[in-house]
Amino acid sequence: MLVERYREMLGKKSVIRELSEFATARGKEIGYENVFDYSLGNPSVPVPQQFTEEMLRLIREDDGSLHGYSPSLTLPEVRQAVAESLKKRFGIPYEAEHIFMTSGAAGAIAHAVRLIADAGDEVLTFAPFFPEYHPYVDLTGAVLRVVPADTETFQIHFDAFRELLSERTAAVLINTPNNPSGVVYSDETLQTLADILREASSKYGHPIYLISDEPYREIVFDGRKPSCPSRFYNNTIMCYSFSKSLSIPGERIGYVAVNPACADAKVLIQMCGQISRGIGHNCPASLIQRAIVPCLDITSDLSVYERNMNLIYDTLRDLDITVVRPGGTFYIFPKAPEEDAVAFSKKALDYDLILVPGDSFGAPGFFRMAYCIDTEKVERSLPVLRKFITKTYR
Amino acid sequence: MLVERYREMLGKKSVIRELSEFATARGKEIGYENVFDYSLGNPSVPVPQQFTEEMLRLIREDDGSLHGYSPSLTLPEVRQAVAESLKKRFGIPYEAEHIFMTSGAAGAIAHAVRLIADAGDEVLTFAPFFPEYHPYVDLTGAVLRVVPADTETFQIHFDAFRELLSERTAAVLINTPNNPSGVVYSDETLQTLADILREASSKYGHPIYLISDEPYREIVFDGRKPSCPSRFYNNTIMCYSFSKSLSIPGERIGYVAVNPACADAKVLIQMCGQISRGIGHNCPASLIQRAIVPCLDITSDLSVYERNMNLIYDTLRDLDITVVRPGGTFYIFPKAPEEDAVAFSKKALDYDLILVPGDSFGAPGFFRMAYCIDTEKVERSLPVLRKFITKTYR
Repeated sequence: MLVERYREMLGKKSVIRELSEFATARGKEIGYENVFDYSLGNPSVPVPQQFTEEMLRLIREDDGSLHGYSPSLTLPEVRQAVAESLKKRFGIPYEAEHIFMTSGAAGAIAHAVRLIADAGDEVLTFAPFFPEYHPYVDLTGAVLRVVPADTETFQIHFDAFRELLSERTAAVLINTPNNPSGVVYSDETLQTLADILREASSKYGHPIYLISDEPYREIVFDGRKPSCPSRFYNNTIMCYSFSKSLSIPGERIGYVAVNPACADAKVLIQMCGQISRGIGHNCPASLIQRAIVPCLDITSDLSVYERNMNLIYDTLRDLDITVVRPGGTFYIFPKAPEEDAVAFSKKALDYDLILVPGDSFGAPGFFRMAYCIDTEKVERSLPVLRKFITKTYR
Repeated sequence: MLVERYREMLGKKSVIRELSEFATARGKEIGYENVFDYSLGNPSVPVPQQFTEEMLRLIREDDGSLHGYSPSLTLPEVRQAVAESLKKRFGIPYEAEHIFMTSGAAGAIAHAVRLIADAGDEVLTFAPFFPEYHPYVDLTGAVLRVVPADTETFQIHFDAFRELLSERTAAVLINTPNNPSGVVYSDETLQTLADILREASSKYGHPIYLISDEPYREIVFDGRKPSCPSRFYNNTIMCYSFSKSLSIPGERIGYVAVNPACADAKVLIQMCGQISRGIGHNCPASLIQRAIVPCLDITSDLSVYERNMNLIYDTLRDLDITVVRPGGTFYIFPKAPEEDAVAFSKKALDYDLILVPGDSFGAPGFFRMAYCIDTEKVERSLPVLRKFITKTYR
């Protein structure tokens, strides 16, 4: 009498997790410092001092209310602060009533999908994509359909997108800066996407919502400014996480921000409270909600990611590996020098290089490197990568 | 295209929340100290010093790993510590693999129900019961069926229970010490319940699981020891919260503990990880998971609840109000002196007494008082309660 849909999920092993487990086991043999583990997107930089100080202050100055229940729509002063920060930064008139605090971007996306998608509906996303989108969508009864990648640029393959749009499309789920490609959607891409969504909403007689997964928003390179898909399309549900920007993935804190001009904006946030109630999650930890308030407009020192990216990108180019230069994140997504990226990744293991094949991201033939590791280790890994590629493929 | 099941939930206002909002509004008029607000079960005692000290220590001594991701089954060292504490206290051989850390008892129950109950299944519970059981069960597609109360004792009405048991029964959900009655199930009740469940499991050819909701386990009166339903029935999924015992409801921390002798014990915990993945919750905040470890065998000073209970109970008895003496919690559930407890509660508002009618707990004609407030306020409220009852009903 166990519910089969969850039991079945146990059978499907994650390639990323398997590789990460291999890396840990191999690390026990030869020392983890000698394993070049590019498998996991686990932030490596220290948390900002302000976050730590605010937690200490909150605990020391607790008048007895610090650990009390949050209201069902999460802490009003935190929602207010998030709204003000977004308004100031992106010029969209968010108010507290448009914000719902969540358990990271994962919680935010899972809420956003439940708001809109039900059995019979479709959610479209663009390859390459984060494989965890599957459980968020699949467990609602809706279907995740993947638009094939434009492998030249990793912007959107609009012709393929238009073909998959239909009256069943309830939402479109994007992720920019992108895991795994590292690519940032251009303003032109976001504008074209918005135009197509407006046209399709009108054609099919219902709003098609844009769910914008933005955990890497603050990690952008070459001095560019973080972009905001919500500015291009009113019916946007922004899903944010502080995991990467403040380096606190274990504390599970993020938010849903519904564009104030969105159809049913306030109702959507109130429905988030009901979704949360049904899954028994209720609210993120109140201490953590409060502690992010002074940190809304700051980040950890994220410069290591750009430094690592440049080192890896230059080496890959030097090796004649086809690769799109990342505009942000801590990922890069080169083309494998043989057609089968799974075989390629297996061969790399002989050099203690842990590279993730692109198949589970919906882009076979590519591989992901998560370079959220020390620059020193990246530097030691590059001669090994060079040796692996030249010995095996040249 | 919004998902109607969540939008519909917005229409159903919670009586408890409405009363609580009335109390807040009235408090702004006459001063909240003059409103005798017995509506909300919000713990009122300070957190244990050990919890605060452990948080400060963890933050100060962070080597960079404090805020990192938890594994998908939550932090191993925390699961291990919970298992050891339970083994020591209740003599059941729990190991880490039987424990999954959750977002309070709410998260635990919602996970437990999803493990077992699907569309077409039934979950039975006993009146009076916590109304939030409805969203946990309803949103799985299963049906919550309520066994009428034994209003003489608020133990289990076994004849009514036997009538509702069927091949569709996937789980039985109990709550002892009970919200709203304050009653603790006797060993005899738990033994009879277990015997019936074993018999029915055998008759219907599948295990009927016992989901045991235990957030009030540590709040027991008259020197009694906390009891453990899992000791009576192997197929028990214990759902615990630290909200009340450590007075930290906003931090959302609790656990699922599956009896090691339970059918599919380890698989159930692994499935919890998949359920959590699908709702995007993943894990409770890592800081909070870690901070409870030194607090597993302690509680806040909970003595105020017993003191308050005795004051209220004695007054009610003196007023000839029918009431079962609570064995724990911070609730008492007397019989209203008129048949319609909703009308009774409305009349009480004229005296600034906020009492919750029992209808939403499945026991019309009774009312709940949540006495997790200062004793000084309880003492001031009793002459008012006395005046209300005698003027209105004597």
